[in-house]
Amino acid sequence: MNKLTRTSELATVQVTTGPIAGSSKVHSAPQIAPDIRVPLREIALSPESGETPVRVYDSSGPYTDLSEAIDINRGLSRKRSAWIIERGGVESYEGRRIKPEDNGSVTGSHAAQPFPIENRPFRGVDDKPVTQLEFARAGIITKEMIYVAERENLGRQAALNGADDTIADGDSFGASIPSFVTPEFVRDEIARGRAIIPANINHPELEPMIIGRNFLVKVNANIGNSAVTSSVPEEVEKMVWAIRWGADTVMDLSTGRNIHTTREWIIRNAPVPIGTVPIYQALEKVGGDPVKLSWEVYRDTLVEQCEQGVDYFTIHAGVRLRYVPLTASRVTGIVSRGGSIMAKWCLAHHKESFLYEHFDEICDLMRRYDVSFSLGDGLRPGSIADANDRAQFAELETLGELTQIAWRKGCQVMIEGPGHVPMHKIKVNMEKQLATCGEAPFYTLGPLTTDIAPGYDHITSGIGAAMIGWFGTAMLCYVTPKEHLGLPNRDDVKTGVITYKIAAHAADLAKGHPAAQLRDDALSRARFDFRWQDQFNLSLDPDTAQNFHDETLPKEAHKVAHFCSMCGPKFCSMEITKQVRDYAAKLNEAGVEIAEETTVVDPESGMAEMSEKFKALGGELYPPVRDTRKS
Amino acid sequence: MNKLTRTSELATVQVTTGPIAGSSKVHSAPQIAPDIRVPLREIALSPESGETPVRVYDSSGPYTDLSEAIDINRGLSRKRSAWIIERGGVESYEGRRIKPEDNGSVTGSHAAQPFPIENRPFRGVDDKPVTQLEFARAGIITKEMIYVAERENLGRQAALNGADDTIADGDSFGASIPSFVTPEFVRDEIARGRAIIPANINHPELEPMIIGRNFLVKVNANIGNSAVTSSVPEEVEKMVWAIRWGADTVMDLSTGRNIHTTREWIIRNAPVPIGTVPIYQALEKVGGDPVKLSWEVYRDTLVEQCEQGVDYFTIHAGVRLRYVPLTASRVTGIVSRGGSIMAKWCLAHHKESFLYEHFDEICDLMRRYDVSFSLGDGLRPGSIADANDRAQFAELETLGELTQIAWRKGCQVMIEGPGHVPMHKIKVNMEKQLATCGEAPFYTLGPLTTDIAPGYDHITSGIGAAMIGWFGTAMLCYVTPKEHLGLPNRDDVKTGVITYKIAAHAADLAKGHPAAQLRDDALSRARFDFRWQDQFNLSLDPDTAQNFHDETLPKEAHKVAHFCSMCGPKFCSMEITKQVRDYAAKLNEAGVEIAEETTVVDPESGMAEMSEKFKALGGELYPPVRDTRKS
Repeated sequence: MNKLTRTSELATVQVTTGPIAGSSKVHSAPQIAPDIRVPLREIALSPESGETPVRVYDSSGPYTDLSEAIDINRGLSRKRSAWIIERGGVESYEGRRIKPEDNGSVTGSHAAQPFPIENRPFRGVDDKPVTQLEFARAGIITKEMIYVAERENLGRQAALNGADDTIADGDSFGASIPSFVTPEFVRDEIARGRAIIPANINHPELEPMIIGRNFLVKVNANIGNSAVTSSVPEEVEKMVWAIRWGADTVMDLSTGRNIHTTREWIIRNAPVPIGTVPIYQALEKVGGDPVKLSWEVYRDTLVEQCEQGVDYFTIHAGVRLRYVPLTASRVTGIVSRGGSIMAKWCLAHHKESFLYEHFDEICDLMRRYDVSFSLGDGLRPGSIADANDRAQFAELETLGELTQIAWRKGCQVMIEGPGHVPMHKIKVNMEKQLATCGEAPFYTLGPLTTDIAPGYDHITSGIGAAMIGWFGTAMLCYVTPKEHLGLPNRDDVKTGVITYKIAAHAADLAKGHPAAQLRDDALSRARFDFRWQDQFNLSLDPDTAQNFHDETLPKEAHKVAHFCSMCGPKFCSMEITKQVRDYAAKLNEAGVEIAEETTVVDPESGMAEMSEKFKALGGELYPPVRDTRKS
Repeated sequence: MNKLTRTSELATVQVTTGPIAGSSKVHSAPQIAPDIRVPLREIALSPESGETPVRVYDSSGPYTDLSEAIDINRGLSRKRSAWIIERGGVESYEGRRIKPEDNGSVTGSHAAQPFPIENRPFRGVDDKPVTQLEFARAGIITKEMIYVAERENLGRQAALNGADDTIADGDSFGASIPSFVTPEFVRDEIARGRAIIPANINHPELEPMIIGRNFLVKVNANIGNSAVTSSVPEEVEKMVWAIRWGADTVMDLSTGRNIHTTREWIIRNAPVPIGTVPIYQALEKVGGDPVKLSWEVYRDTLVEQCEQGVDYFTIHAGVRLRYVPLTASRVTGIVSRGGSIMAKWCLAHHKESFLYEHFDEICDLMRRYDVSFSLGDGLRPGSIADANDRAQFAELETLGELTQIAWRKGCQVMIEGPGHVPMHKIKVNMEKQLATCGEAPFYTLGPLTTDIAPGYDHITSGIGAAMIGWFGTAMLCYVTPKEHLGLPNRDDVKTGVITYKIAAHAADLAKGHPAAQLRDDALSRARFDFRWQDQFNLSLDPDTAQNFHDETLPKEAHKVAHFCSMCGPKFCSMEITKQVRDYAAKLNEAGVEIAEETTVVDPESGMAEMSEKFKALGGELYPPVRDTRKS
């Protein structure tokens, strides 16, 4: 990988480019729309393996494509504009003017360099369909739907013609995961509200992706500056870095100055959906005092971000006035920033939340840009003690009510979930969410399964994330090692993303995603064959895998050695097992029947029986073996 | 913490001593045996909190006790000798002489310094009870049983007299976790074979601990040199370091030279049970060739290690000749070192395993020293593809058969489990183990829930470990980030232990251990009160928590600041929530009735109803809140 440095009169931004070790970017074209190029990452295996390359989902965008020229100052190619224009129903118009308060009224040397290119925004016209939900309901398969269908199959068309898709044997708890994803399946899932394609018409740089229980489990990474720390170039690189390691969406949670400018740089360079929490910026606009918030300031912020191209908004419209007192006796009260802002506003004004009161208008606005809802869980539990309490579930019921309104308005919706939840209380969260919110996709933060490990909350939450992903959560919001302690740096972002890719993949395996186990099997075969380099390259983080190996056995020759540092050359279980296998293969060739009986009842008689067989074989012992795992 | 260096003519060994940050060693004396001093770690909280100190389980031994003088060259105090002698049934005798091959016939500068003190070993006499199981069956409560009962209660006697033990609400899948552990309960669990106290009579340095489904979930850390790397002082420090962070037992898996000497240094300085895999040393004695192994060499090794004080042996007696071919069609064959050694031997000799054939004799030998069985899963799956296959479960059935034999002989038994298992196949492992092995404690390695993350297998396995711990596994064998790639260094050992303490604690919470949530609640209260130092000190790893915090907000003043780097000073959800709470408290003082109805049916009518209440309150809005989580 390389650090790309571009210096211009405008900005100096360093982002990481180049392929992940051992991989290359390939593109797959759907049969029904060969002009669409869907990116995949192809991991080549060593020639002696005789194995075909493994294709994996690729969220990293053009940054890992050697054939793409990256220019942060120009942004990514706006390829999706053509799709949006060709299907009609939108107009280009003179957008809202940027105001000083959009960037916290920052001046002089504190002001970040603006993104050099301005684009006129699009918006929907009249009642014509704009959102993916509206198209889906109208029976129209959009190019975004074709794109994500191809993407979800991981280039598996060829494999399907063989026997590879029979390996799935998971338990999906009532999900409807197909053996192969078709554009029509995508359309149907979106029409039913069970999946969303977050894709603002003003974010044409986007490579579409889908979030839903019947698709691969996705991962979100949060980035963003705060009043205390960090800068625009750092945040752009964090985005590029997060998607490099597998983040499917990125939320920009900036809360300091330069919010608008930071977000512009991020969106113009983002191939993944970008989510925000608009109340954060609205709060900055009123000087940080929640009491001064108003519907007008909030609405203005939504317009600003709709035009900029934000793909989904977290909106804490479920924090109703009547629920606020339910949090007073909690151990950790309200831990959601958005939730606490709204609670404070409600308290101060003795009024129902303006987000709840104006929810219809919010829908009408977001629909025109196809911004998806991420209905925020402002009352999520912030500790094990508060999990699954009355405040949390009261809010969830309101989110269910709001989901119905948003759907009626044509908006795509997902639902945010907790938080801190002990393992035995996780499943009911998923079940209640599915029942209450009409199967709208669930998008959870963790959950953390204990409170006692600050510094390791990627792990406490990775446990919960894997489980709730298995139970049906469509997207997992990552937690980094810095959670509760500080803002994540670049290393923390990577650790958080990899941890959550593990959780998401473990969930895909357990749900029985038909392609999930292909990578596990390829890696395990490489491990068993001592193909070290293949093992590294197939892993979620080849760099770390190789570095760890080289710490103990740095010599190049050891990359092909038939042993590892755990046992050393004299003594290797893998090597011994190869001998077992060779031996069994010989017997197989001799055509000997397998012994079906392996249950031990009487060891002596069992031995006597085997002994007879040995004699019949002239001393050869082993009956051949069938793989009985899948009958 | 300090690095203690002792230089003598004998050896220079550095081990880490001093308390964990914010903690001190305390001792708790059981009412029925006030001479027994059970160590606990007490975490003091800041005076302004008004909270009592939190006592947690402490596996770290005298190394974290400022009042103890540590001398690695003398070993730990042999306090338990008096208990063993006073209950009788044992004799001291001239032990087996150390032979050159015990240390791989190492000579000259390659030979590690021997431990300077020799002790005559004990062994059981005739049929008198020696093992904890035999005493338990005879209705005798040993001091070890009293000790572990006190230890499991975490100094909770006082709390029990209050209301604190009503917080447990887990799901324990049929376990029988008591609200308070009595010595009689311990005795009964041991007598039933549902728990073990691994405690060789030749390891009097031991602080007894218990492993069983109805007790706190325990964690094992593996250490040990190999032919490729590491030294005696490194391994002793790894043991001390592992128990500092919470390892409840340590397995010495050394495979290179100096095995006997390394183990002697470890055991003489170990306050936790030490486990080994004797076949590793036996293999070294025959020059590394499994074919040359014999019952005689193996038996001699068992005697050597029994006399030395090893507390439990992993014995792969379930790898039967007839099961070996079942592994041939696996993706990763046999991945257990012990399993593959035995498979190789069986193949080469065309004979049933000598471990299986001589199992009675092994029992008779181990009984005389009270060495516990850890019946090894030599055929555990090494990949997702091989999970729960015929080879694995055939071996498990044999382990169940061997458990009955060992119990009849008076030996304590636990059962080792996998390995690599996707989430949806974990629970059946626990269920089958309980059913097949008569509820003998289960001791699992992970399991890893995916194969695709070498470099992060502490996490892939931490997910599986938390789940199987919840389902009933009594002890979790840690996996470090180096798994599959190299030998763990000191940092890896710590990461592995902390990850597994998370998994074990998450399991305790989910099972409903009556004291588990006390620490979560204390930490969450500290977090909510912005008592940063208390939050650090209550965490599993105070050093890392504080370092992470200081990376972003290093100033000392920020330790008491009512904000953190995530939001900054202007904007803090925790601070806002405090205002909500203060407000609700005021209303509570006014004696207003709580509104029971929070379900949203008609938002308008709900508001109207509330509006009436506001008026009655003269504009005050919030009815007071009861905590309805626990009714």
